[in-house]
Amino acid sequence: MTFTLAVDAMGGDFGPRVTFNAAQQILAERSDLSIQFYISSSESTWLESELSQRAAACSSTDFSDIQSRFHIHYCEQFVDMSDKPSHALRRKQNSTMALALKSIANNEAQACVSCGNTGALLALSRYTLSTLIDVDRPAMARDIPTAGKPLLMLDLGANIDVGADGLYQFAILASAWRKAQGVKKPKLGLLNIGKEASKGTEEIRLAGQMISELEGIDYVGFVEADELYQGELDIVVCDGFHGNIALKTSEGLLRHISQQFDLILQSSVLGKALSFFTNPVIERFKRQLDPVMHSGALLLGINGLVVKSHGKSDQEAFYQSMRYTLAEIELGTAQRLADEMDRLSA
Amino acid sequence: MTFTLAVDAMGGDFGPRVTFNAAQQILAERSDLSIQFYISSSESTWLESELSQRAAACSSTDFSDIQSRFHIHYCEQFVDMSDKPSHALRRKQNSTMALALKSIANNEAQACVSCGNTGALLALSRYTLSTLIDVDRPAMARDIPTAGKPLLMLDLGANIDVGADGLYQFAILASAWRKAQGVKKPKLGLLNIGKEASKGTEEIRLAGQMISELEGIDYVGFVEADELYQGELDIVVCDGFHGNIALKTSEGLLRHISQQFDLILQSSVLGKALSFFTNPVIERFKRQLDPVMHSGALLLGINGLVVKSHGKSDQEAFYQSMRYTLAEIELGTAQRLADEMDRLSA
Repeated sequence: MTFTLAVDAMGGDFGPRVTFNAAQQILAERSDLSIQFYISSSESTWLESELSQRAAACSSTDFSDIQSRFHIHYCEQFVDMSDKPSHALRRKQNSTMALALKSIANNEAQACVSCGNTGALLALSRYTLSTLIDVDRPAMARDIPTAGKPLLMLDLGANIDVGADGLYQFAILASAWRKAQGVKKPKLGLLNIGKEASKGTEEIRLAGQMISELEGIDYVGFVEADELYQGELDIVVCDGFHGNIALKTSEGLLRHISQQFDLILQSSVLGKALSFFTNPVIERFKRQLDPVMHSGALLLGINGLVVKSHGKSDQEAFYQSMRYTLAEIELGTAQRLADEMDRLSA
Repeated sequence: MTFTLAVDAMGGDFGPRVTFNAAQQILAERSDLSIQFYISSSESTWLESELSQRAAACSSTDFSDIQSRFHIHYCEQFVDMSDKPSHALRRKQNSTMALALKSIANNEAQACVSCGNTGALLALSRYTLSTLIDVDRPAMARDIPTAGKPLLMLDLGANIDVGADGLYQFAILASAWRKAQGVKKPKLGLLNIGKEASKGTEEIRLAGQMISELEGIDYVGFVEADELYQGELDIVVCDGFHGNIALKTSEGLLRHISQQFDLILQSSVLGKALSFFTNPVIERFKRQLDPVMHSGALLLGINGLVVKSHGKSDQEAFYQSMRYTLAEIELGTAQRLADEMDRLSA
């Protein structure tokens, strides 16, 4: 079986150089993969020169194999990070992002990966691919690495103030996704600021009641944010404001810790001496420190597999987002999602 | 000058053994300090035997000096971690917590430290000490260690759904506190899920407008949660739900990272060999990893200095909370707070 990813090469903090390098990296690794590379035509001179340099530098047979699975689509437009979703929707239908999404609708690709403007990606995905039946609001979801199994957390910022019904829908969506991935009875918690039934807002308490009546899941009740990394849950449901704060706090703290660690090593003679020897261990540690950046966020509830890589994605992060997307294509989760939703809400 | 702390010995996950050891530790260090130790009379047998064991083990002159500054108050009641605030208020006026607070009202102590039930501590503090003029809701605030100067964050869970006016009040309170500590023009941010003026809830946008008109502060606008640890701000204002999520996420992630780091060191031969030599460096790192536990949270807006130590406080954490409280007494911040508030909201 062969796979095709549609890659929106534009957007993010580092632009097409990062997405291009990541695409070459994954193509070299996976001979069963083709990539449709949607890039602004303003980048054509750079891209063509880059490609001929690489062809010259590599063994020609190796590179021509990669080249044969790398399909460049030059586009007139691209979505800017500051574009409002409504503007992208009305004025950027010929952008790299919109055309990458259309390739899923046209069955030319099985999934789309972008590190561009989140709001625009959500709006264009809804418009181009539509939402699943019964889904009012697609959610932004992410697998967070923990001490145990990965935790699917949603929403992460696409929807704020969703209310009890929105949280209930997120619970159904996330459970269906986990079930489609093969988890028989997903363990689900609702994020709150206390475990007692009296804690939190009216909306969260009501959502808890509704979710507790869902069949086919293991609802554990309210969970607090210090439990997120414990690795005992399959899913945590929250509104987009709360999810965004938990995720961004984690990102900022990880960056801070990594910097502090370097400072401590450099501030003592022992630390300096050791850092030479400990580098392999420490680099491995730092890579683990930075897991949030290394997988993509799903737009869950969209009729198709759309993965949002972090706006700050470097080559490694974008590569990991593509690997994650490929794994989901191979599992066929997106195809099974709608059936699972029917079963859960039946 | 001498200082007196009222310590509520009960509450928290580890009970009076932790608070007792921490009290002995700080008394041994600070000869200018006395502690009023409010403990349940049910613990008297244990406490008396503990004290005589210590007296026997130590040089008698050293310990009798500590003993002379350690004043035990046996109380009929103590507040349980599961007590509702209203219950504590109506039925536990003779508890260790209530009586420790009353000692501030009676000018017998300059501050109170407790690791007990947060809701009860807030309710009893309001009742016993009352709030400052113009303060509707006291906020729970904490100095968070960052890459730069400490960040005062509030609210951390005492008030949810405060609305624009509540956030505005928190900004005034926090700014007055920082000014009373000697920061001339505190740099203040409002926590949101994006920096653009259009982001977030109506309430937060309105609060931003109100805060931007405050005199005497340096309002930087919306900040995202990944900026919390950067060390550029003096204050970040948010509602109690959001603050609680940011704080608890940090706690859980720090615990997770510390465990992962141990696993990595133990999983490789190099790591195992190195851990022997790197222990001093790594222990220092872990101590820095755990900063959130190491200082107390303030009940800001109460007419008196009340510090809440973490419910999970061990001896070191409770000791650090007392040290922090002492530092604030020495600065005289609480006394200057009301004047600063008058000036800020004038």
